[in-house]
Amino acid sequence: MDTVITISRQFGSGGRLIGKLLAQKLNIPFYDKEIIVKAAENSGFAKEFIADNEQKHSGFASYAIPTSAWGGISWSNLDNFEAKIYAAEANAIERLAKQGACVIVGRCADHVLKDKVKCLNVFVFADDEERIKRVIDVYGDATDRKKAQKLLRDKDKSRARHYRYYTDAEWGDAANYDLCVNSAVFGIDKCVEMLAAAYLAFDKK
Amino acid sequence: MDTVITISRQFGSGGRLIGKLLAQKLNIPFYDKEIIVKAAENSGFAKEFIADNEQKHSGFASYAIPTSAWGGISWSNLDNFEAKIYAAEANAIERLAKQGACVIVGRCADHVLKDKVKCLNVFVFADDEERIKRVIDVYGDATDRKKAQKLLRDKDKSRARHYRYYTDAEWGDAANYDLCVNSAVFGIDKCVEMLAAAYLAFDKK
Repeated sequence: MDTVITISRQFGSGGRLIGKLLAQKLNIPFYDKEIIVKAAENSGFAKEFIADNEQKHSGFASYAIPTSAWGGISWSNLDNFEAKIYAAEANAIERLAKQGACVIVGRCADHVLKDKVKCLNVFVFADDEERIKRVIDVYGDATDRKKAQKLLRDKDKSRARHYRYYTDAEWGDAANYDLCVNSAVFGIDKCVEMLAAAYLAFDKK
Repeated sequence: MDTVITISRQFGSGGRLIGKLLAQKLNIPFYDKEIIVKAAENSGFAKEFIADNEQKHSGFASYAIPTSAWGGISWSNLDNFEAKIYAAEANAIERLAKQGACVIVGRCADHVLKDKVKCLNVFVFADDEERIKRVIDVYGDATDRKKAQKLLRDKDKSRARHYRYYTDAEWGDAANYDLCVNSAVFGIDKCVEMLAAAYLAFDKK
């Protein structure tokens, strides 16, 4: 029972909540922001610095960092903040994953752990209508429909760019994952149930 | 219990077999080639003609048919064979789907039935290694690894082009479906079990 579940998710799909409830159901640890803290603790960066910078990928593509910058990490060769943060997070993810079964949300964990740890890689997405509703009513990140739509578009673009940059693969392309589920169609609880069943089936293999 | 399950699948993923076993498990009809026959019966085309032509999409993109050619069918405006066949198949799919719950494999059924019939849209895919094995050992469509690889590439391209042409969406993009499953990871039987559970959850909604 040492399989790690990685969850990539569209913003507003409830993927983080699904991951959290799934970890509770399976009684295994759940990691998202904690990874940043771990990364901070072990890389010498101040936590605040990482928290401030780790989501700012807007000017990201202008850095000339090789895609493989995070692999076989050579600190002295990394001369920009984002790559260092990514590398610190990748190190933390790998260390956590090697401690045993857990759920890790986001941060290209599927790619970081590829060929290193047995993973069930999941992608959670949802219809735009449901995502807009969630962004307004649950996250409280937007006050109206138009703002929510813009936020979805921006977040989708940012995550896709980030994923493509580090993995050379397309975020949301089914073939990158083991299981993709539309949370708007099944609802949060049923998604958790389905993923738990899939995890148990997978872990037995 | 009138939800239709549509299955899009990568060649060599076992998606057709999964669909067949799923239909058996749920005790509902299963359609793939039968659709062609139905289409033939109701459109005036000879069955042989359709069987000969319906998979030949190599020179397809050169025809100047609007993407919406099959919708609101106006026969006199369709001046090429492929579009007529697609329209005949779309008609047949819609007619079959409206008879009640069933499993339909391939033929852009997800797109044909959009906003017309309640559908659970599934995409089945698999790792290349597993697909190559299946193409050689199960289908017997290739005698060696190299030929199998070429066949996979050709089929993937052909299905992606066909899907893109008629739906304006990307084949294999998770967000087009409700559930995507890697059959190499779970195995055929477990996929059937998972899809049956998803179907029952979905149908209750």
